[in-house]
Amino acid sequence: MKTEITKLFKIQYPIIQAGMVWVAGWKLASAVSNEGGLGLIGSGSMKPDLLREHIKDCFKATDKPFGVNIPLLRSDADELVNVIIDEEIKTVFTSAGHPGKYIDKLKKNNVKVVHVIPSVKFGLKAQEVGCDAVVGEGVEAGGHNGINETTTLALIPQLVDALKIPVLAAGGIADGRGILAALSLGAEGVQIGTRFAASIESSAHPNYKQKVVQANDEATVLAFKKIGLVRMLKNDFASRAVKAEDEGWDEEKLKELLGRKRERLGIFEGDEIEGEMEAGQGAGLVKEILSVKEIFKKLLNEISEAQKRNNKIIS
Amino acid sequence: MKTEITKLFKIQYPIIQAGMVWVAGWKLASAVSNEGGLGLIGSGSMKPDLLREHIKDCFKATDKPFGVNIPLLRSDADELVNVIIDEEIKTVFTSAGHPGKYIDKLKKNNVKVVHVIPSVKFGLKAQEVGCDAVVGEGVEAGGHNGINETTTLALIPQLVDALKIPVLAAGGIADGRGILAALSLGAEGVQIGTRFAASIESSAHPNYKQKVVQANDEATVLAFKKIGLVRMLKNDFASRAVKAEDEGWDEEKLKELLGRKRERLGIFEGDEIEGEMEAGQGAGLVKEILSVKEIFKKLLNEISEAQKRNNKIIS
Repeated sequence: MKTEITKLFKIQYPIIQAGMVWVAGWKLASAVSNEGGLGLIGSGSMKPDLLREHIKDCFKATDKPFGVNIPLLRSDADELVNVIIDEEIKTVFTSAGHPGKYIDKLKKNNVKVVHVIPSVKFGLKAQEVGCDAVVGEGVEAGGHNGINETTTLALIPQLVDALKIPVLAAGGIADGRGILAALSLGAEGVQIGTRFAASIESSAHPNYKQKVVQANDEATVLAFKKIGLVRMLKNDFASRAVKAEDEGWDEEKLKELLGRKRERLGIFEGDEIEGEMEAGQGAGLVKEILSVKEIFKKLLNEISEAQKRNNKIIS
Repeated sequence: MKTEITKLFKIQYPIIQAGMVWVAGWKLASAVSNEGGLGLIGSGSMKPDLLREHIKDCFKATDKPFGVNIPLLRSDADELVNVIIDEEIKTVFTSAGHPGKYIDKLKKNNVKVVHVIPSVKFGLKAQEVGCDAVVGEGVEAGGHNGINETTTLALIPQLVDALKIPVLAAGGIADGRGILAALSLGAEGVQIGTRFAASIESSAHPNYKQKVVQANDEATVLAFKKIGLVRMLKNDFASRAVKAEDEGWDEEKLKELLGRKRERLGIFEGDEIEGEMEAGQGAGLVKEILSVKEIFKKLLNEISEAQKRNNKIIS
């Protein structure tokens, strides 16, 4: 497959694995890169020293390109950026913040920068400061989402029309049909989260992976709209969050309910009652825990089948 | 184009025009059917006698198949069904309720029944009672939406996997790229709303059409989650609705705020302050008010271009 994204990253398939917290260490990232996609180490759940270790291990595990995701709202984002430059990482995906502060430093060190955005407005800003591409993320995505709740299907073509830089599609894409749909919308590739979060190489807790496999189309909920939207699997904690919002709790009380380390508790420690188990609406399409190798085989086969079907319909 | 839906309805293209309230009279429905799609008269804003007139006028304006949409929650749904049978309509799209009550009567009269659903659970129910197809409607759609807020991209492949009857995709589809995306997901066709609501043949007020054309990717909002979600263009009334929800208003107070005839006020009378101007997130893709003929030409050209691009990417 050839798109602007395969050219930009010198990869075989325009399939990026999202750099998810508590999920995407060197094992997952290197496995994805070895299959011809682009693996991302998720630094969001790593101190700078741990990130350095994961980068070193990832270089040992693959000779293909891989990258690192940095949530820019981290108080030690400076240090994470320094680790990336020290360790000669050449691809960074930034999210949750504005890349303007770091982009000059990164570009001076020949790092390609892709920013994750939920709207055309933020896409234009990312392009203006010099990002190489954007990930347009729809509200069906797991984890943190944009305030306007625009879906992938509606967002991607509007981004493609507005921007000159390549657009990757994220949110709700968990199989080859979703990848072909994203390409149809004009995307140059996709970023996939939940499907890889439930892979063998993911660092997530077995309870988390099992809950993704059991999920149906109604299994996730978008909560905490007043303090930064997050999509997660429904559980006891999620129900309390939804109820609190229905009752009109203010920001302070909601922050108290959210507390700290809920993501770790849910994704990494597998607490099904109190944990925040972030996952996208594509979870309902994930029916088994597979290796990254098996996932790629499946995705490519599904793309090919869907493409054949389209060519049969449109003659 | 050939799919299960073109076969079912004996139409040229698997493109259905949504039977929208205050928008979809005989003019719009017949224009869509004349172009090779399936036009639907929206009975949601019509008394039974007015529906009868629109059906008669539609038969005069086209010799191609067309249908009628019935919101089943209408207190006079029985009468609407009787009009349909009297006037020998052979295609009915039902929404907002359960088709079980009317399906035997409709099927005995050789009427094909398609039900609009927001989840796999309701899709299975529709199949079980004998519907010929379903419209899977994602949360990006304008007007009323399902409680779980599943998006089109996530919903359609899950419906396709779960059901034996054909699945149409609706929500966020406003151009040919969206149609090809829906087909990629396994849909047998699409139902398009907002794009046709802003057409020349639509009965909507010029102010409404203008607001759709001016819309960007952040122009709509989903409100009234406690009393039946509805997606509409942002305006003064919508802001008040969102604020009320943030403050945790109860159902009774929200119903009072909503009041009555807001849809008519917004869509048909063009009141930009007090009206409920229902529209989907695809509004941002609508840049001009075109005739149905021009819209079809554009859609078919866009499908073809997107298909060529996919075939170039995947070789």
